[in-house]
Amino acid sequence: MIKSRLFTPGPTDVPPEVLVEMAKPIFHHRTERFKKLFGEVNEGLKKLLMTSNDVLTIAGSGTAAMEAAIACAVPRDKKVLVANGGKFGERWVKVAKTYGLDVDEAKQEWGLAISAEFVREKLATGRYGAVVVVHSETSTATACDLEAIGKVVATTDALLIADCITSAGTLPLRQDDWKVDIVAMGSQKALMLPPGLAFVSVSPKAWAVIDKITPPTLYLNLKAYRKSLADSDVPYTPAVTLIRGLKVALDMIHAIGIEKIWARSAVLAKACREAALALGMKIFSKQPSNSVTGIMYPEGVTDKAFRKTLREKYGCNVAGGQDWLEGKMFRISHMGYTDPVDTIGLIAVIEYTLAECGAKVEIGKGVAAAARVIKDWA
Amino acid sequence: MIKSRLFTPGPTDVPPEVLVEMAKPIFHHRTERFKKLFGEVNEGLKKLLMTSNDVLTIAGSGTAAMEAAIACAVPRDKKVLVANGGKFGERWVKVAKTYGLDVDEAKQEWGLAISAEFVREKLATGRYGAVVVVHSETSTATACDLEAIGKVVATTDALLIADCITSAGTLPLRQDDWKVDIVAMGSQKALMLPPGLAFVSVSPKAWAVIDKITPPTLYLNLKAYRKSLADSDVPYTPAVTLIRGLKVALDMIHAIGIEKIWARSAVLAKACREAALALGMKIFSKQPSNSVTGIMYPEGVTDKAFRKTLREKYGCNVAGGQDWLEGKMFRISHMGYTDPVDTIGLIAVIEYTLAECGAKVEIGKGVAAAARVIKDWA
Repeated sequence: MIKSRLFTPGPTDVPPEVLVEMAKPIFHHRTERFKKLFGEVNEGLKKLLMTSNDVLTIAGSGTAAMEAAIACAVPRDKKVLVANGGKFGERWVKVAKTYGLDVDEAKQEWGLAISAEFVREKLATGRYGAVVVVHSETSTATACDLEAIGKVVATTDALLIADCITSAGTLPLRQDDWKVDIVAMGSQKALMLPPGLAFVSVSPKAWAVIDKITPPTLYLNLKAYRKSLADSDVPYTPAVTLIRGLKVALDMIHAIGIEKIWARSAVLAKACREAALALGMKIFSKQPSNSVTGIMYPEGVTDKAFRKTLREKYGCNVAGGQDWLEGKMFRISHMGYTDPVDTIGLIAVIEYTLAECGAKVEIGKGVAAAARVIKDWA
Repeated sequence: MIKSRLFTPGPTDVPPEVLVEMAKPIFHHRTERFKKLFGEVNEGLKKLLMTSNDVLTIAGSGTAAMEAAIACAVPRDKKVLVANGGKFGERWVKVAKTYGLDVDEAKQEWGLAISAEFVREKLATGRYGAVVVVHSETSTATACDLEAIGKVVATTDALLIADCITSAGTLPLRQDDWKVDIVAMGSQKALMLPPGLAFVSVSPKAWAVIDKITPPTLYLNLKAYRKSLADSDVPYTPAVTLIRGLKVALDMIHAIGIEKIWARSAVLAKACREAALALGMKIFSKQPSNSVTGIMYPEGVTDKAFRKTLREKYGCNVAGGQDWLEGKMFRISHMGYTDPVDTIGLIAVIEYTLAECGAKVEIGKGVAAAARVIKDWA
């Protein structure tokens, strides 16, 4: 049996418990039953983000969440600082420009993240209304210090908008403590669901700004979602099936405890890094994220053959590199429904696949290294 | 997330594809829809057992299949030879005695299996109407040479009744080539289903015997199942949900190919044996089965603490020992929905658990040994 496993940084595997819940008959969303479910889901999301903010749920992908934040929460009379250290940073620059905003693009070398010090210097000019950062830049497998950036932005009038699509639920994130004004999140990552839900959590400081803006969008107007949520409802037809699955997934997450999940992701990421080093490979990022690990291919191994063999022969799906990293690196997700057993097993089949692709590999060296890392934590 | 995995020799894990199929609305069994499904399932079962016999499906557990065979197919005017080398052999002795049969119990030292030579000598007396063997004795993780025994029994008038509950779909088994008259199978092993279905495949030689016997049972009367199956039907209410799941499971199995699955089980079993030896542990059986591996605990490790930690901390369920082996060994299944990734990951968490239980373990030694075995096959 070739058991299929997604180690891609979204979509991630959906637990059978969630799949079965979503297979149940659909019910109507303009009902008390839906409101009850939606209210419970909102509580679970708040707990996940460690926030007292309501979390708005949009039927859409993560990009919808980020676009809603940019469309609704960036003051039109000021500049917006957008960090760009990879494909997702690039996307937020594009979105901000689409809305005609005065964008200051802060380009980072790929594999590095924007620093709190840089943000402090920029904001000291007083010309910025918002700062947009990617907490975990999936394309480069790099994380920024969101807590430090939050502390800096909190001392100013600017808002901090964070793409937490591949960080929330995996990396430590305490929205209220860290003073992150807007957190954007998607369903197909740590939440262990299929794609289709986007989430936006908005601070009171951000609402004060949003209330002064008339956004040029109906579907992504956060004010409409806030108004409905006050009655545990949504302004437009919700993705009911996904929301049912979300309830089950959130219950599973909170049964374990979010801080335990953060610790587990960190150790799985470290195990993959140590295994890669033991096998003579390099980690791409200089500030590696614990939600996804980017590993450079050894000389002579082609991305196409590697990922095809890993997928077809061993059922394991990893992601390739993006843009100029295409063909040069592969990426392993540590988000959601994955665990030490999966990760150590993955390392073994990566060893086989590397060997089959012509690399010199001492079989067992990577798995033994990974096993030692995980043991120290277990 | 503690992902739950069953490495118990039944029940085994059910693939999500099967779970979701079984979650679909029930339909009535006295319909053309059911007959079509049941006909397809029968074809899949025949292919699995490599037989041209019809395979009778009973709503019940594996014991029901064996009891049906004993009740219906053992001539009352002759002795029945029942091999007993473990808990399941013991059970067939009990069943045969319950039906008042003239039982000759062939006791084996636990960890050894009955030999074809022994069977030949016994049958040479001409006093036996049937031989009952356990292909893979789960309690001792020991397999007999069913092919060799089949060849011996085929030269006589006696029938060979084989408990293939933990072998069919995992160990090589070619019912027609090997001349096994009756094969008994259950759903919760290699077939990757929940418990609840029992299967009996009957050769023409066995039907000739059965037709002369009036069994003292209605529910387990194989003749009634044969009569219904001629019309792709069942005599008593079938477990429709499980039969739906069975169709999906059989399609998954045949998409891979049964011989490939046999080869995979053998390599997973060998990987576990090599890992155990690398970690300084002993294999219990002298004729180890490739469907389940029995490993002796190292000095000082208690079964209760070991399996509790493995289950609660790492989500992995293995079986303990039975009878006098209780507390002395643990057993790992290689049946059904398990693969190299699971098996190598399991070895790692077994290493952690042994260490936590006080054994001296060099972390990574077992996984590296297992990884090397699987690589040689991959």
